[in-house]
Amino acid sequence: MAKPYPPLEKLPTPALLVDRRKLRANIERMANRIGGLGGTLRPHVKTTKSIDALQEIRRAGNVKGITVSTLREAEYFFANGVTDILYAIGISPNKFDAIASLSERGCDIKIILDNPDMARALSIDGETRGSTFKVLIELDTDGHRSGVDPNGSELLSIAEILGSSNGTELLGVLTHAGESYNCRTPDSLLKIARQERDLCVHAAERLRNAGFDCPVVSIGSTPTALSVDDLSGVTEVRTGVYVFFDLVMAGIGVCSKDEIALSVLASVIGHQRSKGWVITDAGWMAMSRDRGTSRHEIDFGYGAVIGLHDEDLGDLAVTQANQEHGIVTVRAAGDEMPFEAFPLGQAIRILPNHACSTASQFDCYFVVVDGEVVAEWPRISGW
Amino acid sequence: MAKPYPPLEKLPTPALLVDRRKLRANIERMANRIGGLGGTLRPHVKTTKSIDALQEIRRAGNVKGITVSTLREAEYFFANGVTDILYAIGISPNKFDAIASLSERGCDIKIILDNPDMARALSIDGETRGSTFKVLIELDTDGHRSGVDPNGSELLSIAEILGSSNGTELLGVLTHAGESYNCRTPDSLLKIARQERDLCVHAAERLRNAGFDCPVVSIGSTPTALSVDDLSGVTEVRTGVYVFFDLVMAGIGVCSKDEIALSVLASVIGHQRSKGWVITDAGWMAMSRDRGTSRHEIDFGYGAVIGLHDEDLGDLAVTQANQEHGIVTVRAAGDEMPFEAFPLGQAIRILPNHACSTASQFDCYFVVVDGEVVAEWPRISGW
Repeated sequence: MAKPYPPLEKLPTPALLVDRRKLRANIERMANRIGGLGGTLRPHVKTTKSIDALQEIRRAGNVKGITVSTLREAEYFFANGVTDILYAIGISPNKFDAIASLSERGCDIKIILDNPDMARALSIDGETRGSTFKVLIELDTDGHRSGVDPNGSELLSIAEILGSSNGTELLGVLTHAGESYNCRTPDSLLKIARQERDLCVHAAERLRNAGFDCPVVSIGSTPTALSVDDLSGVTEVRTGVYVFFDLVMAGIGVCSKDEIALSVLASVIGHQRSKGWVITDAGWMAMSRDRGTSRHEIDFGYGAVIGLHDEDLGDLAVTQANQEHGIVTVRAAGDEMPFEAFPLGQAIRILPNHACSTASQFDCYFVVVDGEVVAEWPRISGW
Repeated sequence: MAKPYPPLEKLPTPALLVDRRKLRANIERMANRIGGLGGTLRPHVKTTKSIDALQEIRRAGNVKGITVSTLREAEYFFANGVTDILYAIGISPNKFDAIASLSERGCDIKIILDNPDMARALSIDGETRGSTFKVLIELDTDGHRSGVDPNGSELLSIAEILGSSNGTELLGVLTHAGESYNCRTPDSLLKIARQERDLCVHAAERLRNAGFDCPVVSIGSTPTALSVDDLSGVTEVRTGVYVFFDLVMAGIGVCSKDEIALSVLASVIGHQRSKGWVITDAGWMAMSRDRGTSRHEIDFGYGAVIGLHDEDLGDLAVTQANQEHGIVTVRAAGDEMPFEAFPLGQAIRILPNHACSTASQFDCYFVVVDGEVVAEWPRISGW
């Protein structure tokens, strides 16, 4: 029998809610889309950090392994039976021990790097241990952050180092089109999605032409995964935030506000009527400090306010926040705050700018179906 | 014997470090300052959320009870032997049970509110339970967020409700000069500190003149506590971030950058030499999304970069961040990045904009003395 949960309006606040119907729809949409292009997903669990959420992703099929952003995620998911894990942050020597330990315990852990010096340090370390690190070379396909030039000489230098050592095995190439977060139109999204794919496939071909195996060609971001029109040459698509979506994704145009599955439950704790302020107990600690919509067409402050059961309460946002206080105001200057919708103690919900940062402030999700809590999913954080 | 810790440069990164010498100096400075004015501290543990850090505060003396920002903090500190606890966020009905439970278990828990409706709901709830909630009335002394006007009629209306019920006991008044965070000069800080004190003492006098007891007069913020020149009429000062300080406090002018006791240890994981970028594994998940210095004279991005042992490496900041990547650049346009100080794998440290938000991303502090880890202090988060 399911654990009995209090009604939504009685939950201690702030609390993190997941609308399971929306979550499943988002997961199916991505599975169908990537499946329809003949592709396979390697979901990025940095968004949910929850084995229960991963089960939902797996249920929709078309999934191979996972992507993680921390070693703690790797350990947690491995402890929960996941063995095919890609740690997609450039490795550094103080993490070699942890990777080797995972590998020795039977985890098929793969790591990434983008520098000949790191490749050399890793290969020597692997040789010394008598073990073999599995490595992808990170590519910079849009100037966003890390990675080597897919057309540059370092790609081949690194491959040479990795390929000529018993301490390392070159598995392939990987990129992430982070610049897709700056797109606002389907055309610009399609363009950057094709660029991410083309440059990654091209780098793989350069490696193969130089005599290296390159079985893995890994791309991905939620905006490009929902925009790319052809996955020829790509072996896996990494994407994370699509399971929840958020206001940033809505601003980019890859989802609607109604599809956002994650929200923060908050209580009205005060009013400053002369200023049109409703004060809640969801401040920046609950919403995170993420201001991801600040340069979007619609700036939602620290989050968009909706009713307990998805009611539209007007164009309201958390426009100011302290650690444990959120100040809700009407976004349009001159419009009146509908105070009658916000009596003291009233439970409301707030859609997050960025699901990854908001979810990371909490240690569990309350899963909601038809306005009732049906489950509690623990989640991890930290390193 | 102390647990042996690896050398600082071998710790898995990102990790949260506390310089114990600086921590102790900061704690002594505040204890001496408030003590010198004849005042008493009720430290706000929302910054550290650690019983070990509280022990350091208590060692310096002049402390009475604690202030908390979440019920989880209240439960954690109560479980660790602290009984005199003020929960300083406006109460709401979905928290009455938790407060009553703490009280029944022997916790001397005090709560706050700023509205006659909430006072009425609370008094009825207390009467129904046959217990008495201890309550402070929250004042708005600077237009910052919650609280009643110290000169308004609601103050007396609320006191009337609380004082005439067996379910509630009026303890006093409380305010927080949040606007002090917008000050940049000693004069403006002194002015807002006096205003915080004067209006709070005045409200207490109004209550006493109307026949109510008002034993507690509670004020506080780190900037005003370090600026106020007289505490006559004030019974306690609440302050939290001073134990660590941070770049926001340095920007306000109440500490120097050298006094900041909290930092994030990070590893260099890559370079983009043509752009002058050093990439580390401390992104916004580790630093938090706080951009508190964005409107200060010096904008440190997501944090200021220093050497492993406090070395000055130049005017460097984490100017861009992704979830687990931080991009370090030279702040002054045109200056060259000293890449020789940042070989791959190099451990560096990053000073936070806001200690409360950065610390909350981690579940423990590594305590450092003379460049060596001497202890690990667990900390809590969540609600």
